[in-house]
Amino acid sequence: MSLGLVRLKAKADRRLRAGHIWIFSNEVDTKITPLGQFQPGEQVVVENAAGKPLGIAYINPNTLICGRLISRDVQYKLDKSLLVHRLNVAMSLRDRMFDKPYYRLAFGDSDNLPGLVIDRFDDVAVVQIATAGMEAIKEDIIAALQQVINPKGILFKNDSQVRQIEGLDEYTEIGAGDVPNQVKLIENNAYFMVPVIDGQKTGWFYDHRMNRQRLLNYVKDKRVLDVFSYVGGWGIQSAVAGASETLCIDASEHALHFVRENAALNNVNTRVNTIKADAFNALRDLRDEEEKFDVIIIDPPAFIKRRKDQAAGEQAYRRINELAMRLLTRDGILVSASCSMHLKRETLLDTLRQSSRHLDRHLQILEQGHQGPDHPILPAIPETDYLKAFIARIVY
Amino acid sequence: MSLGLVRLKAKADRRLRAGHIWIFSNEVDTKITPLGQFQPGEQVVVENAAGKPLGIAYINPNTLICGRLISRDVQYKLDKSLLVHRLNVAMSLRDRMFDKPYYRLAFGDSDNLPGLVIDRFDDVAVVQIATAGMEAIKEDIIAALQQVINPKGILFKNDSQVRQIEGLDEYTEIGAGDVPNQVKLIENNAYFMVPVIDGQKTGWFYDHRMNRQRLLNYVKDKRVLDVFSYVGGWGIQSAVAGASETLCIDASEHALHFVRENAALNNVNTRVNTIKADAFNALRDLRDEEEKFDVIIIDPPAFIKRRKDQAAGEQAYRRINELAMRLLTRDGILVSASCSMHLKRETLLDTLRQSSRHLDRHLQILEQGHQGPDHPILPAIPETDYLKAFIARIVY
Repeated sequence: MSLGLVRLKAKADRRLRAGHIWIFSNEVDTKITPLGQFQPGEQVVVENAAGKPLGIAYINPNTLICGRLISRDVQYKLDKSLLVHRLNVAMSLRDRMFDKPYYRLAFGDSDNLPGLVIDRFDDVAVVQIATAGMEAIKEDIIAALQQVINPKGILFKNDSQVRQIEGLDEYTEIGAGDVPNQVKLIENNAYFMVPVIDGQKTGWFYDHRMNRQRLLNYVKDKRVLDVFSYVGGWGIQSAVAGASETLCIDASEHALHFVRENAALNNVNTRVNTIKADAFNALRDLRDEEEKFDVIIIDPPAFIKRRKDQAAGEQAYRRINELAMRLLTRDGILVSASCSMHLKRETLLDTLRQSSRHLDRHLQILEQGHQGPDHPILPAIPETDYLKAFIARIVY
Repeated sequence: MSLGLVRLKAKADRRLRAGHIWIFSNEVDTKITPLGQFQPGEQVVVENAAGKPLGIAYINPNTLICGRLISRDVQYKLDKSLLVHRLNVAMSLRDRMFDKPYYRLAFGDSDNLPGLVIDRFDDVAVVQIATAGMEAIKEDIIAALQQVINPKGILFKNDSQVRQIEGLDEYTEIGAGDVPNQVKLIENNAYFMVPVIDGQKTGWFYDHRMNRQRLLNYVKDKRVLDVFSYVGGWGIQSAVAGASETLCIDASEHALHFVRENAALNNVNTRVNTIKADAFNALRDLRDEEEKFDVIIIDPPAFIKRRKDQAAGEQAYRRINELAMRLLTRDGILVSASCSMHLKRETLLDTLRQSSRHLDRHLQILEQGHQGPDHPILPAIPETDYLKAFIARIVY
């Protein structure tokens, strides 16, 4: 196996030795190993300033993060064989954790598969590729998936804007077999039909599974409001767990169509209603109408996508959570979540504190939620720990 | 109602307005309201520098934290009547969360009952008082508990060293009714006899209930090691959940006696063994004997009790977790916990990262655990958020 070579500058190997797997372009000794010689996605041996090999990485000469380590052993290139091994290691965890085949099968860096996300819906695998290094071995990914789980269909949902950074097109295509427009899944005893081809991201957000499970202890005989409901993950499960009434708010009629389908699928359609509206406007309207809810879920899309959105985004989290608190009954439960990696856990917590003080209510945090075990965290890469959820009790 | 008055200095009301309830002695305007005039535990009206009343606090003129707000309404003194109200608010949460009467009924500051902790074991209440303000209304606490849950027995387990700061004696006494030496409890489908009169703290650590529940998904047919086992909270529950073998290590023969009793109580005694030893020595011996475990729980007592223990304590967490990692099978699970409020969550996480790198193993954090909902957190008081647990997968 003959690979190119990338040499790092002095001390630039520190982060890798600490467990990280990214290489930044300013860490490469480009006098000795110019990056321009490599194709986007090409695999190379990485060595430290003293010439000691650190492993194999794939390279993109055009990006700030110019390399990602895919192996600490220079014997093993990322090909079908190594993909099969990595997927098997990932599967052994999922097999242990889940008794049904619905989960995130591969979570990028954390599963030693940088740039690759795979969500499994039984016999359909939805794949998201974020880097040129993974795009270059797309056929190997198909072959490896077929060997490990042999799905009926593989969908590439490669429509994320982050691909632009890597110089990749955005597209959705069936990589192998047959993929229906919608797939069925089971989560915490509820059934869902979700749109994989034209849904959000892979079609479903497995990351909140455990947080939704925790919520179910709070909803029996309660009136529940699910804000930013998408296809009804929180709301439908609340109804199935015995909520007396569930109202789902989303700005997308397409999403709410699925909420209604899923309500029917679980025989809770008489207790589930939908409102198509901007969430902020809808909460203000509900306040003006003096509506009250026992349990409110605020699980918005990332308000802070980039650093420059920081201040406005934090304000938006503050406004939406305070609006929700106003709609709670006297001893109510607020589930407040954020998937924005730019919003710190402590900041969201402080937002809740500020809002409760502003309204002069006693706030207790009952539970703190995180992404589930099919989204493992790599401590050396803080970005892998992105999901936050608080279950709060608000008394007045 | 005629109460004394404590006036704060300019801007010293900020923390209270932000939701905190402690008053530090240097925040009091002692020229206008000298603290020496008050008895330890006396209740006073607190006002800001402009003379605006902020609420009622109890005072201890001899401590750095010289006051704790017990009400933001100057109408209500902390007496039997307000205690009953506060306990009812606390109970309504516990009733909602737990179908059996085994939980922390009152968690100090977070339940608006500063200095008071009550653990409930069905009809026995074990009370811990940490402040002169609560000690002063001990009879009201008994009367309020009798009104709210009418227990057969109330035990004051007032033997914590923190009482010295408040000038209080350390003692254990039965406050009312009958209290047996041991009480029975149920947690996650396992039964336990625990020593309340001569056990650790209240006799049981309800705070890890949810973390233990999460662990049970990982133990079926596995060999489990429970380090610092106390009476077997993690270990016995693992055995009940199907662990093939469980080994409990503790330095106390008294604790291990209860492990064996509890193993028998749950009919898992053939699968539970004990080792009486210092945990560090025991793990080294197991390593020398080349023993391996699939799942290891490291749940030590606080290694950092005071700030001056910080460096040595952090080293101890590092050593014990690295020793545990060495004993894991090739794809093993480590549960690493800390109840030390002086150890930050990020620091424990980084400790695990460092240890895994030192041993060249791939570490994934699968789950992050916190104290359960009967130990609510008050965001304005970071000290109320003290319990950390990580469920980590370590692959090599």
